[in-house]
Amino acid sequence: MKLTSLDDGSADGRLHLVSRDHSRAAPAEAVTTLQALLEDWDTHAPALKAQYAAVNAGAGVPFDAAKALAPLPRAWQWLDGSAYDSHGALMEKVFGIEPLPTWPPLMYQGISDRFHAARADVPLPSEDDGIDFEGEFGIITDRVPMGTDAAAARGHIRLLVQINDWSLRKLAPREMKTGFGWLHCKPACTMAPVAVTPDELGAQWREARIDLPLVVDWNGARFGAAQGVEMSAGFDQLIAHAAYSRDLVAGTVIGSGTVSNESYREVGSSCIAERRGIEILDEGAPTTEFMRFGDRIRMEARLPDDTPLFGAIDQIVVKA
Amino acid sequence: MKLTSLDDGSADGRLHLVSRDHSRAAPAEAVTTLQALLEDWDTHAPALKAQYAAVNAGAGVPFDAAKALAPLPRAWQWLDGSAYDSHGALMEKVFGIEPLPTWPPLMYQGISDRFHAARADVPLPSEDDGIDFEGEFGIITDRVPMGTDAAAARGHIRLLVQINDWSLRKLAPREMKTGFGWLHCKPACTMAPVAVTPDELGAQWREARIDLPLVVDWNGARFGAAQGVEMSAGFDQLIAHAAYSRDLVAGTVIGSGTVSNESYREVGSSCIAERRGIEILDEGAPTTEFMRFGDRIRMEARLPDDTPLFGAIDQIVVKA
Repeated sequence: MKLTSLDDGSADGRLHLVSRDHSRAAPAEAVTTLQALLEDWDTHAPALKAQYAAVNAGAGVPFDAAKALAPLPRAWQWLDGSAYDSHGALMEKVFGIEPLPTWPPLMYQGISDRFHAARADVPLPSEDDGIDFEGEFGIITDRVPMGTDAAAARGHIRLLVQINDWSLRKLAPREMKTGFGWLHCKPACTMAPVAVTPDELGAQWREARIDLPLVVDWNGARFGAAQGVEMSAGFDQLIAHAAYSRDLVAGTVIGSGTVSNESYREVGSSCIAERRGIEILDEGAPTTEFMRFGDRIRMEARLPDDTPLFGAIDQIVVKA
Repeated sequence: MKLTSLDDGSADGRLHLVSRDHSRAAPAEAVTTLQALLEDWDTHAPALKAQYAAVNAGAGVPFDAAKALAPLPRAWQWLDGSAYDSHGALMEKVFGIEPLPTWPPLMYQGISDRFHAARADVPLPSEDDGIDFEGEFGIITDRVPMGTDAAAARGHIRLLVQINDWSLRKLAPREMKTGFGWLHCKPACTMAPVAVTPDELGAQWREARIDLPLVVDWNGARFGAAQGVEMSAGFDQLIAHAAYSRDLVAGTVIGSGTVSNESYREVGSSCIAERRGIEILDEGAPTTEFMRFGDRIRMEARLPDDTPLFGAIDQIVVKA
């Protein structure tokens, strides 16, 4: 199934089914918001599946992605991992950080009261803060009881999403040094317009990882196309990690961290910080600057046969 | 005004006015949940104030604090500061942490999808994790635009609350070292049953600080009674700090951090970690152990004339 939340003036938007080819959409009849669906998935899913088949057969109206909010426009919980070791190891090397063990996974709790729409302008306070994008994949869970292990966690992955985790890099070192983690340097994220059930990926959903490239274009120029599958911890393991000392509320969003590959010199990067890190290693100093107001960032992942999946994030950063 | 959310089977509870002496309560007529009130305070406040006067004059029914949820049983955002320098300086000394500047304030984003009721048992995974309480004061805001300064922030402080920020101390060093901040070591918090408007404190609301002792009893024995006023940054400054790169959603809860005084040897502490720190300094090793399952923690702040304010947190920690 493919789901979107269209802007109807409410905070949560109106849940719609989207056809597999993203050409058509119809308001979900069984339930009106994605949050309500996630709180009672098994009750609503059969009717939604039937309606999804109808939309794929031509029901509904043309789907206008420009009218989509984030699939989950606000969430009770957003936890972001950092599951690509190639990215972590590079950052440690560049910044002289003592290497951290790759298990348990890195994860922080971020702002979840809003996720920007994929086409919305993103207001931030200052170009001096080192404005960066971070292309990520993510999952959304139903309710996960405290102590759930990775095997059981797989059944709680209800939806897959694509995320831009906006970052203010120059504020990060101070916040990391406090031990309290990130606050200023992690403003609200963006979600691509369509959330999909794992079965939509077919063989590209492997070991609770998304085996697709995330194509990132910055101001119209290709910046990266790293494969999602190289996570050292799958989303199942990230869920189990998150649930150690808390129940996860239905609608918990968990991110992969910046998609990154060992072959980053060939495939490119999903954030500017990584490219700057490579430049520091190779040339002694970074040459790529961070974003300026007015810059455009586009991110999309498609299936191998070019079927659209999450739709595209395509937005501009502006002065708040 | 004094407000509580009584358990009616819903996630948010049913908003009630509580009389100044906590003897009576009546369902709010103007609005049914605290979240809805915070989203449109100015519209609803006049009717609520009139109803509050009626409850103080004898309207309503007897208030049973045992039926109260947290005033805000779930929030879109919970940001916890660490604004008592005596606590921070002690922890730095004990753990050999390089002293951090006291400005900007320390703050992390924590789990907000639930706040435990004041009398609810609190389930946690293991006694080996160093289970600790943290007595705090907190505030709840209406919507605060990005970039709001401390002077303007005062007008956004709609309610004051009292919080127990449950902590798993033995998990903290690893999470602090990652730079990603706390996750496992900060499970869901508890809120005392009643939220109050700042005017209820009279002269005890000073410079956006709560000038009252927070009385903490552990298993029936007095543990601390530190004054809330010694914050190095007031709640107005904490709000301004939080709002640097984000709008604060209506219903944002911001905590003071563990209430602590320079005179901690005389007034006691609001968490076990602080007492252990004093023991390490004075005796070379800690002698106070962390909590065991079945332990009871009670926390309450009253006005100088003994009028109740937030009601008491009084609960037991249990095996999840």
